[in-house]
Amino acid sequence: MITDDLRLVDQHCHGVVQQDLDRLGFETLLTEGSVPRNPFNSMLGLAVRRWCAPQLDLPPHATAEQYLARREEWGWRRVSAHLLGSAGVGTWLLDTGIGVLTEPTAFAELAGGSAHEVLRLETVAEQVAAAGVSATEFAVAVEEALRERIATGVVGLKSIVAYRTGLELPAEPPAEEEVRAAAGAWLRWGGSRLDSRVLLSWLVHLGARLGAEYGLPLQLHTGFGDEDLRLHRADPALLSDFLAATRSSGVTIALLHCWPFHRNAAYLAHVFPHVLVDVGLAVPYVGDRCGVVLAELLELAPFDSVCFSSDGYGLPELHHLGALLWRRGVGRLIDSWVAEGTMTTADAERVVTGFAAVNVSRVYGLNVVV
Amino acid sequence: MITDDLRLVDQHCHGVVQQDLDRLGFETLLTEGSVPRNPFNSMLGLAVRRWCAPQLDLPPHATAEQYLARREEWGWRRVSAHLLGSAGVGTWLLDTGIGVLTEPTAFAELAGGSAHEVLRLETVAEQVAAAGVSATEFAVAVEEALRERIATGVVGLKSIVAYRTGLELPAEPPAEEEVRAAAGAWLRWGGSRLDSRVLLSWLVHLGARLGAEYGLPLQLHTGFGDEDLRLHRADPALLSDFLAATRSSGVTIALLHCWPFHRNAAYLAHVFPHVLVDVGLAVPYVGDRCGVVLAELLELAPFDSVCFSSDGYGLPELHHLGALLWRRGVGRLIDSWVAEGTMTTADAERVVTGFAAVNVSRVYGLNVVV
Amino acid sequence: MITDDLRLVDQHCHGVVQQDLDRLGFETLLTEGSVPRNPFNSMLGLAVRRWCAPQLDLPPHATAEQYLARREEWGWRRVSAHLLGSAGVGTWLLDTGIGVLTEPTAFAELAGGSAHEVLRLETVAEQVAAAGVSATEFAVAVEEALRERIATGVVGLKSIVAYRTGLELPAEPPAEEEVRAAAGAWLRWGGSRLDSRVLLSWLVHLGARLGAEYGLPLQLHTGFGDEDLRLHRADPALLSDFLAATRSSGVTIALLHCWPFHRNAAYLAHVFPHVLVDVGLAVPYVGDRCGVVLAELLELAPFDSVCFSSDGYGLPELHHLGALLWRRGVGRLIDSWVAEGTMTTADAERVVTGFAAVNVSRVYGLNVVV
Repeated sequence: MITDDLRLVDQHCHGVVQQDLDRLGFETLLTEGSVPRNPFNSMLGLAVRRWCAPQLDLPPHATAEQYLARREEWGWRRVSAHLLGSAGVGTWLLDTGIGVLTEPTAFAELAGGSAHEVLRLETVAEQVAAAGVSATEFAVAVEEALRERIATGVVGLKSIVAYRTGLELPAEPPAEEEVRAAAGAWLRWGGSRLDSRVLLSWLVHLGARLGAEYGLPLQLHTGFGDEDLRLHRADPALLSDFLAATRSSGVTIALLHCWPFHRNAAYLAHVFPHVLVDVGLAVPYVGDRCGVVLAELLELAPFDSVCFSSDGYGLPELHHLGALLWRRGVGRLIDSWVAEGTMTTADAERVVTGFAAVNVSRVYGLNVVV
Repeated sequence: MITDDLRLVDQHCHGVVQQDLDRLGFETLLTEGSVPRNPFNSMLGLAVRRWCAPQLDLPPHATAEQYLARREEWGWRRVSAHLLGSAGVGTWLLDTGIGVLTEPTAFAELAGGSAHEVLRLETVAEQVAAAGVSATEFAVAVEEALRERIATGVVGLKSIVAYRTGLELPAEPPAEEEVRAAAGAWLRWGGSRLDSRVLLSWLVHLGARLGAEYGLPLQLHTGFGDEDLRLHRADPALLSDFLAATRSSGVTIALLHCWPFHRNAAYLAHVFPHVLVDVGLAVPYVGDRCGVVLAELLELAPFDSVCFSSDGYGLPELHHLGALLWRRGVGRLIDSWVAEGTMTTADAERVVTGFAAVNVSRVYGLNVVV
Repeated sequence: MITDDLRLVDQHCHGVVQQDLDRLGFETLLTEGSVPRNPFNSMLGLAVRRWCAPQLDLPPHATAEQYLARREEWGWRRVSAHLLGSAGVGTWLLDTGIGVLTEPTAFAELAGGSAHEVLRLETVAEQVAAAGVSATEFAVAVEEALRERIATGVVGLKSIVAYRTGLELPAEPPAEEEVRAAAGAWLRWGGSRLDSRVLLSWLVHLGARLGAEYGLPLQLHTGFGDEDLRLHRADPALLSDFLAATRSSGVTIALLHCWPFHRNAAYLAHVFPHVLVDVGLAVPYVGDRCGVVLAELLELAPFDSVCFSSDGYGLPELHHLGALLWRRGVGRLIDSWVAEGTMTTADAERVVTGFAAVNVSRVYGLNVVV
């Protein structure tokens, strides 16, 4: 396949769990549900048995029991190093905002390649609240905390507002007094989980402003995720006003994941020149359907806007399958288009290296060899 | 195909019309529109001529005129017995809440196999209102009526709230006083068609509570249907709050039909362990596209959550095609996945028997031989 | 292919630019974005190089530079005549409501075949406002202006309410006093871009009423378009109340484009007998994916309801590719269905001539030889 030898950049993933897992622990990470529902009995489960088992010296389609036994035998570190190291990914951008997982430096040691941090806005705002702050100081304190973290070398910002109040963001950030009032109300209630529409709108606009200032793309979770989500409020089309408002500000907005709204996301990338899209998260989950999902995305998405991510979280299987299934889905799709005369081989090579690494490297300022 | 010899359980269908039909009568039942629009000139119409004609000893692709003439010659009873009897369905769950159609006992005699009743909540509530009840007694009277009907041996409950006020149900049922006030207003207006948001929210929550108590799954119509529907209010994603609220209550929620929101439904089945999904109704209608629709569903739906239904209504052609096209669509899809190495033959057999009968039998407590 | 020799009717397109274009000018018209984002690097760009280059005596997949140089060498008139004339389209319906583009008469001279005018409601209303009118006279003046324009021989009406306040139209037009008040407010603000929800609702209902009276279909833009759109408000499912209200009025409603909501549009065509659908605009843009998009549309759309349009605007490449890719997508799809036994060859010929010309000719009263 045309994608066989590409070194990918994973635009968005998380670290892995640094401990051995029993079956329940493993299965809990092999689903977006909070209670695993026999996740081996799904497209993702089939893909683990087919593709990850041979990486652990088992035959393809080994049983779940065999797979988990081998995993226990090897231990989390060897399994992780092996699955991450063989993924063909040279650069990993890690969202560090959730979970007790490997931090970028440790991840890079484990996985090979280089790892960079993506900073989650909501986590910083919640840390500021937890440390104690008045409503009057809140906005300034969060901005300062973000600038401090940015100065440590993060390569991107991230918001999960899709999980909180949804993606229908206003074109303009709320006024200062509104933010102060909302901060007061939120902090009075303990300030733990940030779920104020006003504060979240303000925070995402702040992220866009800082992103423009520092040259950091702002990643937005869109589309499916865990059960905390209300799917219809995670449709990226709801971002239209926000995207129209930020299009000339200098910031790049990366729409992550997007499934099942990836056609809507493709439209946004088509009309807004500062938008990137990927179908991460969906990639490992949908298994052999990855090529179909990508083909739907490519109907309207400019080829310059398309990136790869796995959204791997906790289990290195997700990072590995993200890269493998993406490579295979894109490879078969583009090979078939070359065979049909849709594009030349030279076009195809430019297109797939764009998807794999060039588009993301350009926008994030990464120094990457494809 | 791997599905050739499976005996299916049809999770949701209706009886058939017990009289001979003229062309207009037949065509009116061969569409979800209230006025037939040349329904032979559609995927469904092509499927009738291709697959049902040979069942009536006509060549495949017989004309509509030939088909209707043969139907008249044989009479409704012989046609129904033949089409239902050759569908390869062993168990039928009949929604008895609409239309003058064969009741379960007569249906089982006609079709072979066994038939069970699914009770439509709105019909019972409207019957209670029609019989005369005060606003104060309404809630208790409906609950009593439901318990009486449940005691007669129904195997599931059903709501068509999608057709009335849509699927955006609250997480909590409305308070007693609210229900009383809404019942007063509705009954004053004659209490015929139940379309009060408060009463419908209360009724669906009551269905979930009784479902948990009696071990009866609650079926919800979602996705497309007749012209009475507002499609955007029938998106199953709108059920998220309701599903989150009922996930640990013990009830199973079956999302019926779902097209064109079947990917959204797949997400819900992925994150909520008490959710079943099918693409009934779509199955006969989309004809040879059935495999594609199923493949989209399987991207995220856990294999344990997927069921079969035809939503056959009035015409036995719909029940027959539902089973035939589903069997063919699933069979070709899964055969291709086995050929491609996506799954082993043993996996495939477990998966398709799950879809065909095991998943639904487990949840409905049916005693079924696959 | 079964579609090879069909003469198409293009239900909805615009004229072409009557001047030579530099690269920026060309690329600006080769995207729905207001800033071109390397549009040669997209499905559409690949299709231009593959299919349009040979029309200009270049090899398939000529570079963008070669293509633009040849275009400059030939000049806009020769290029347009060649691309339009070889599209296999015999009849063009031109929306004249936007842009300085060839008018129908000049277009027909350039393209061959016959061209007819589709009248954009919003443009007429804005012209009436610009000419100076009081709030009291506004409604009558717009209706008179429309009747005058209709009398000049337009074949259809068109609304772009999707771009303004979205498609959630009321079942009934607003009352006279409401219209007067809204006109007063709008005219006081200069009356340039019509974006009053009341006035737009009134105007679309007026269009439906005049359409019924004169036998003119009313075209509605739905689905994706330029960045001015809010995609989630352009979902044709939002039209349900309006469609239910107009279904027996005698008007035909043509849902244009529809992507990515084409399955929703197919449902509307299924249940409402006065609805036509096409996947214009999407057709040139999605390139070789055209067959997939059409197949999704045909899942539920009655074959009598499906039409062709290109939505070509400005560049004759869009008209040419619209026809070519549609012909190729439909041809391969239907050929495969004949090969698989889904339909007979005779059925297939009836179906594709319906899509290509018969359905639209019937509804618009065109005298067309297929």
